[in-house]
Amino acid sequence: MTTEGIAELDHDRASRRGYPEAVYCAGKTPAQLAAIAAEVRDRGTPTLFTRVEPGQVEAVLAELPQAGYHEDARLIAWPPEPPAPTGGLVAVLAAGTSDLPVAREAALTATHLGRACELVVDVGVAGLHRVLNRLDLLRRARVVVVVAGMDGALPSVVAGLVSAPVVAVPTSVGYGASFGGLAALLAMLNACAPGVAVVNIDNGYGAGHLAAQISAP
Amino acid sequence: MTTEGIAELDHDRASRRGYPEAVYCAGKTPAQLAAIAAEVRDRGTPTLFTRVEPGQVEAVLAELPQAGYHEDARLIAWPPEPPAPTGGLVAVLAAGTSDLPVAREAALTATHLGRACELVVDVGVAGLHRVLNRLDLLRRARVVVVVAGMDGALPSVVAGLVSAPVVAVPTSVGYGASFGGLAALLAMLNACAPGVAVVNIDNGYGAGHLAAQISAP
Amino acid sequence: MTTEGIAELDHDRASRRGYPEAVYCAGKTPAQLAAIAAEVRDRGTPTLFTRVEPGQVEAVLAELPQAGYHEDARLIAWPPEPPAPTGGLVAVLAAGTSDLPVAREAALTATHLGRACELVVDVGVAGLHRVLNRLDLLRRARVVVVVAGMDGALPSVVAGLVSAPVVAVPTSVGYGASFGGLAALLAMLNACAPGVAVVNIDNGYGAGHLAAQISAP
Amino acid sequence: MTTEGIAELDHDRASRRGYPEAVYCAGKTPAQLAAIAAEVRDRGTPTLFTRVEPGQVEAVLAELPQAGYHEDARLIAWPPEPPAPTGGLVAVLAAGTSDLPVAREAALTATHLGRACELVVDVGVAGLHRVLNRLDLLRRARVVVVVAGMDGALPSVVAGLVSAPVVAVPTSVGYGASFGGLAALLAMLNACAPGVAVVNIDNGYGAGHLAAQISAP
Amino acid sequence: MTTEGIAELDHDRASRRGYPEAVYCAGKTPAQLAAIAAEVRDRGTPTLFTRVEPGQVEAVLAELPQAGYHEDARLIAWPPEPPAPTGGLVAVLAAGTSDLPVAREAALTATHLGRACELVVDVGVAGLHRVLNRLDLLRRARVVVVVAGMDGALPSVVAGLVSAPVVAVPTSVGYGASFGGLAALLAMLNACAPGVAVVNIDNGYGAGHLAAQISAP
Amino acid sequence: MTTEGIAELDHDRASRRGYPEAVYCAGKTPAQLAAIAAEVRDRGTPTLFTRVEPGQVEAVLAELPQAGYHEDARLIAWPPEPPAPTGGLVAVLAAGTSDLPVAREAALTATHLGRACELVVDVGVAGLHRVLNRLDLLRRARVVVVVAGMDGALPSVVAGLVSAPVVAVPTSVGYGASFGGLAALLAMLNACAPGVAVVNIDNGYGAGHLAAQISAP
Amino acid sequence: MTTEGIAELDHDRASRRGYPEAVYCAGKTPAQLAAIAAEVRDRGTPTLFTRVEPGQVEAVLAELPQAGYHEDARLIAWPPEPPAPTGGLVAVLAAGTSDLPVAREAALTATHLGRACELVVDVGVAGLHRVLNRLDLLRRARVVVVVAGMDGALPSVVAGLVSAPVVAVPTSVGYGASFGGLAALLAMLNACAPGVAVVNIDNGYGAGHLAAQISAP
Amino acid sequence: MTTEGIAELDHDRASRRGYPEAVYCAGKTPAQLAAIAAEVRDRGTPTLFTRVEPGQVEAVLAELPQAGYHEDARLIAWPPEPPAPTGGLVAVLAAGTSDLPVAREAALTATHLGRACELVVDVGVAGLHRVLNRLDLLRRARVVVVVAGMDGALPSVVAGLVSAPVVAVPTSVGYGASFGGLAALLAMLNACAPGVAVVNIDNGYGAGHLAAQISAP
Repeated sequence: MTTEGIAELDHDRASRRGYPEAVYCAGKTPAQLAAIAAEVRDRGTPTLFTRVEPGQVEAVLAELPQAGYHEDARLIAWPPEPPAPTGGLVAVLAAGTSDLPVAREAALTATHLGRACELVVDVGVAGLHRVLNRLDLLRRARVVVVVAGMDGALPSVVAGLVSAPVVAVPTSVGYGASFGGLAALLAMLNACAPGVAVVNIDNGYGAGHLAAQISAP
Repeated sequence: MTTEGIAELDHDRASRRGYPEAVYCAGKTPAQLAAIAAEVRDRGTPTLFTRVEPGQVEAVLAELPQAGYHEDARLIAWPPEPPAPTGGLVAVLAAGTSDLPVAREAALTATHLGRACELVVDVGVAGLHRVLNRLDLLRRARVVVVVAGMDGALPSVVAGLVSAPVVAVPTSVGYGASFGGLAALLAMLNACAPGVAVVNIDNGYGAGHLAAQISAP
Repeated sequence: MTTEGIAELDHDRASRRGYPEAVYCAGKTPAQLAAIAAEVRDRGTPTLFTRVEPGQVEAVLAELPQAGYHEDARLIAWPPEPPAPTGGLVAVLAAGTSDLPVAREAALTATHLGRACELVVDVGVAGLHRVLNRLDLLRRARVVVVVAGMDGALPSVVAGLVSAPVVAVPTSVGYGASFGGLAALLAMLNACAPGVAVVNIDNGYGAGHLAAQISAP
Repeated sequence: MTTEGIAELDHDRASRRGYPEAVYCAGKTPAQLAAIAAEVRDRGTPTLFTRVEPGQVEAVLAELPQAGYHEDARLIAWPPEPPAPTGGLVAVLAAGTSDLPVAREAALTATHLGRACELVVDVGVAGLHRVLNRLDLLRRARVVVVVAGMDGALPSVVAGLVSAPVVAVPTSVGYGASFGGLAALLAMLNACAPGVAVVNIDNGYGAGHLAAQISAP
Repeated sequence: MTTEGIAELDHDRASRRGYPEAVYCAGKTPAQLAAIAAEVRDRGTPTLFTRVEPGQVEAVLAELPQAGYHEDARLIAWPPEPPAPTGGLVAVLAAGTSDLPVAREAALTATHLGRACELVVDVGVAGLHRVLNRLDLLRRARVVVVVAGMDGALPSVVAGLVSAPVVAVPTSVGYGASFGGLAALLAMLNACAPGVAVVNIDNGYGAGHLAAQISAP
Repeated sequence: MTTEGIAELDHDRASRRGYPEAVYCAGKTPAQLAAIAAEVRDRGTPTLFTRVEPGQVEAVLAELPQAGYHEDARLIAWPPEPPAPTGGLVAVLAAGTSDLPVAREAALTATHLGRACELVVDVGVAGLHRVLNRLDLLRRARVVVVVAGMDGALPSVVAGLVSAPVVAVPTSVGYGASFGGLAALLAMLNACAPGVAVVNIDNGYGAGHLAAQISAP
Repeated sequence: MTTEGIAELDHDRASRRGYPEAVYCAGKTPAQLAAIAAEVRDRGTPTLFTRVEPGQVEAVLAELPQAGYHEDARLIAWPPEPPAPTGGLVAVLAAGTSDLPVAREAALTATHLGRACELVVDVGVAGLHRVLNRLDLLRRARVVVVVAGMDGALPSVVAGLVSAPVVAVPTSVGYGASFGGLAALLAMLNACAPGVAVVNIDNGYGAGHLAAQISAP
Repeated sequence: MTTEGIAELDHDRASRRGYPEAVYCAGKTPAQLAAIAAEVRDRGTPTLFTRVEPGQVEAVLAELPQAGYHEDARLIAWPPEPPAPTGGLVAVLAAGTSDLPVAREAALTATHLGRACELVVDVGVAGLHRVLNRLDLLRRARVVVVVAGMDGALPSVVAGLVSAPVVAVPTSVGYGASFGGLAALLAMLNACAPGVAVVNIDNGYGAGHLAAQISAP
């Protein structure tokens, strides 16, 4: 089976944009993913498989047995080892433990795009001292990725404390009126401090990619 | 002209609920308001006229010339002098200058319902030191009213710092994706710190009333 | 396993805010919850585990076997016994039987935060006599928590009857156009009687916490 | 000028449906309305002009000088005198004074469709005694039209008290989170008492028409 | 087990409103339903159990073995036989086969509230001849219940053809942009023909109840 | 003044796509429109100016005095005379008189793109006979443009009667719950008859353009 | 079992509209589908069964064993062979592999309605060269169907490149803020190039049908 | 008059975050702005006044007569001369002329924060050649700001062509279903190419600020 009729991979994306190809797995059949993985293997294109679901993992790993699978982040990276880091530091903050999978997806993505990355968890604004305790890290970073659900308030607070840009990722964590992350998304778009770049709900991959571009050498 | 056929005032509300009557002026004609004001005067019921628009003010003041008109808060209070304060302290915080009219409506309402009240302005989370500078006031208060538009992040931060309940008032201040205060409203409902009581968008009257009840003796 | 890298518990929250720590379980893995429960046990911090799902209960109880698990309210309380009650009475009203799990979560939370609490069920506005029959309880309470889905009309009716503040909790109970509790939420935010404090949809924990703060001694 | 190319009046609607023609004026030019009014006059078709704006009134009255113009209800009725009433009684309740224009449009429409009609104002659920004082009227009616903005709670309460159907009209009266009447609309659709028929926001005409059909002999 | 603490049945609803009690089953546990069914049996109150899910049926039928269970309509009626019909005819139209469960719930409810009822299926506006073929039935009815998903266009067409009121029930049937019935709901609220009474999405019970009230003798 | 820095007209659009250039006037200053009109005149590119507001008309006509201004459709056409018609017939239906401006914009656009066009008004589904009276026209057309607000039901009915494709244009005409045309838009997207192509709310230009493409020779 | 009481098939739709009947399977029971399939077989009406779910397939195939089942497109076609193609070419573009099921449903529908059809996959705007590589096909087509989720940007780009009309199908593919296809739907309705006809989310059948009508001989 | 009680300026923001103070003028009275402007003058803090409305301009310029007022961008800059540029190049693209005011606000902000900036207009995706003609500029930039209304498709296309991050600004330009910029906002959040940072609707200031941070030396 080949990818003909199901996908047209963008193998020269690395040269055109400077970053690996990414395959968004949601909605693809295992057979389609196997064909894509085989082509990735044959062409040698560095690739991230994002949003991998349990039933899809085997199909990819069968073709790319050395690939690195990160279950919590739902990510498969090939090759498994990230390149040596260049550019500025990426700091990733998760407001709560429930935001951790998305934060890990962001951190892994930035790492595989060639950045040094530090991840800190459980620094919600309900306990400001936890944020303030991290000021040193925040001010060393070239870009700060902030992952938060519920009220989405953390990016505003962080952006007010640093001069680096903040990449804000709303998550779908929360009670009913979070409406699947809408509340956090709107809060982040309305951040009262300038310097907040918003990406899609639960889109750790997009946040990590953007952070890597911002902190590029 | 009488109020027959246009309104049925709740003169015993004071005895039943313990607080003055309120007349919501939006959508009422000047003639209707004049009739209501005349009845208020004749019955001697303490009353707040809320959301008064310029064309309505004269109609009310013609019948109640001693009433106190607060233009920025769009409020007319009768009698103009609030009662002597009892109960706990009400602190009112406005995140930005643009939130001031709503914050003043809240503070005036709480004052006319018999509470001591302190109002502080421009303490948005983008400058955390401004919030932290007010910790003494925040911790003296029996209830804190927080008025904020845009990201609505301030109530979460305040609620994390005090043990008193926080009454959060979203305002319609902000860029397009605030959607008339929806963003701040949702953020406040999703506050990551417990202890946040949310009222309607721009509803300073409701916030002041609720705060007065919470801090009742 | 420790909580390092997955959570940073706020053990001094009791001293800072005066109430127990809470762990929001949704989205956390059993392993993460086990680590958190172990730390709670070791540090002796009174803690409520909220929104516990069946697959998570064992992980927590394995570390805290004496903890009190309330299945309908999806709550684990540690220690299992609430403190002796102080402050004012908290009345909790559930509009219908389907609202009972959220109402129980609110009542348990208020109890574990140190308040006396009475819970009444099935007092919807479609049978006003049921509400009016409870006037004595309603007027004895320092704060009334009202839990309702569908039209969310009960808080308006109750707030018109008492001088105490009302904490309104919308639930996701209802036909299609309740939109997961949005209808009740909006109705409560627009309550025509002042004195209604709204919290998030199905957020019994938040309502109980707020009620405990309002009725604090 | 004729109506050719701008409107095709439904003169036999009276025979087909049994009720007068209605002309929705919003968005029509004065010239178009004049042509329509002239045709109404020439054909003698009983007609209601709804949602008339100030700049349109003269155009209609110039052709139909005897027509009855009701400014608050934004309605022009021709002929001005309603038919002698038949069928059951229509009770119209307005929750607040600000809902009065819509309630009057409903009452006038029902009257011009041939029903006896009684209008009561300011019976919001925040003062239940006002509703209960009207029980006699409510139980005499064949149908009750309830007009309410804000929380839209009144139809639920009324429907729980009577065996007649309730026609609920949400109005756009309220603070920001009423979202132009959406809150009241959703509450009414989710009324916890059965027997509530909902019409469009501020649509007094539609409510009066429906009530007249329900109470037809 | 009794209903104490879980429900307060409204046994005199029949005398107060003239119709049987209804128990909304969604969100109730089998044990709660069993207790309610036992009380219904002991008190002899005619009752409809609506929105019954498979796991709940046995609990009810164990206490009320003679009750009539209608699987497609998710309804249990007790007693199983409806009363002899009085009042006017109720016509129920389902736009498509997929709308049939809701239409059957409406028809069964009206029947158990004492009305004669005729049900017609698959009369969508895409085949107008199917509607026009039913004109005789439509014009004999005292009220027409129209059940439709997707574009919700059928009530407008029917209301334009008859002088009786139309009860419109939107269903959640349709492609993505039906948004769970929102599209049909809005269309029905905006029906261009007057005389359309809208109820909640998929709420066949509410439609049948309203129709029975409208066509009461 | 030139268009440099404010617009880059697409003069070869005629050759690339086969249709005239269009200038969307909303949000442009009179000075900008004058510069654009001057360039249109100098280059001789056939152009439609859409959504022209009163204050903008003079600026365009000063540079293109021969242009044809259609006030109700808010359209300026240059050259004023449409080309000789080719291709199939375009039928345009307006459900109500209030939908006429949008319908005229559609008809004028199709005409200036080279099609024969017939416009019929006031054929709403509330009076089906008006639609059925036009069956001959509808079945002669190569494409039918249907313009409707409120319930947006007309496209479903028309699409069920003809084999030609239907271009549906929702308008913002209607009561509150039309939400600016959203109700009609959703209804049209959910049309129960296949063959309905939906364009933006009030977008007569887009509908006319699409119809001209569909009926191209 | 017959279709009486569950469906009224439109067997003369072929003569009236010129295209086969379609049966929307969502929400129908296997027994209902079996009865419909039997009637289709007996009457010999060409029919498409759309949105078939796994549990429904056997019921249809038991009655129509020769029918063609396309699992990925969730479509059963009877007769299985499409008619010989007439009219213009239909090009179908899928922006990504995840959009393929909807694209196949569109292509199969157009084919069974008698058109020649070419399907191209993975031509998203993030790699413009993939679109530009297909210019030859795009300009040969009489109509282009564009299937895209996420940002829904492809129809705008394609419409700017061709003179044929574009049928745009939003899909529910994407991260949280796609809101089930709403983002793509709105983008397509707001396409900055004219000539874009939008259908419902994931509605490949509707798109294929519309394309077949547009490209009819 | 002083700013006491109306605003608390953040004069050390420059030192803390490295960029000038900004005053959001919407909702402030001329008197408040005058007091703020006077304090700015007295303290010498570089400041941008954003969203200035006509009635506010004089109040600011009276205190800061040398300030630079940019009417189209609704911006007042003090001091009027930007600092000498450092860091990377900022490219600003406006999809249409109607997006120009927001694009100018972005460009001016970036310039006053110390960046070199180039602005290009009318490069919508409906004419891809206009985008492709600018590839040289796009690839020289350290960050690209893309301002677009309607379908919001341009950021996806640009992000697919460059390796620099893209700051996407949705504007409220468009027909009804743009819903005040919501359509463009959602499209940008769902951009199918990674590397897109979204800011609030019409928020040129925020975009320019973010771009300046990203391209900082």
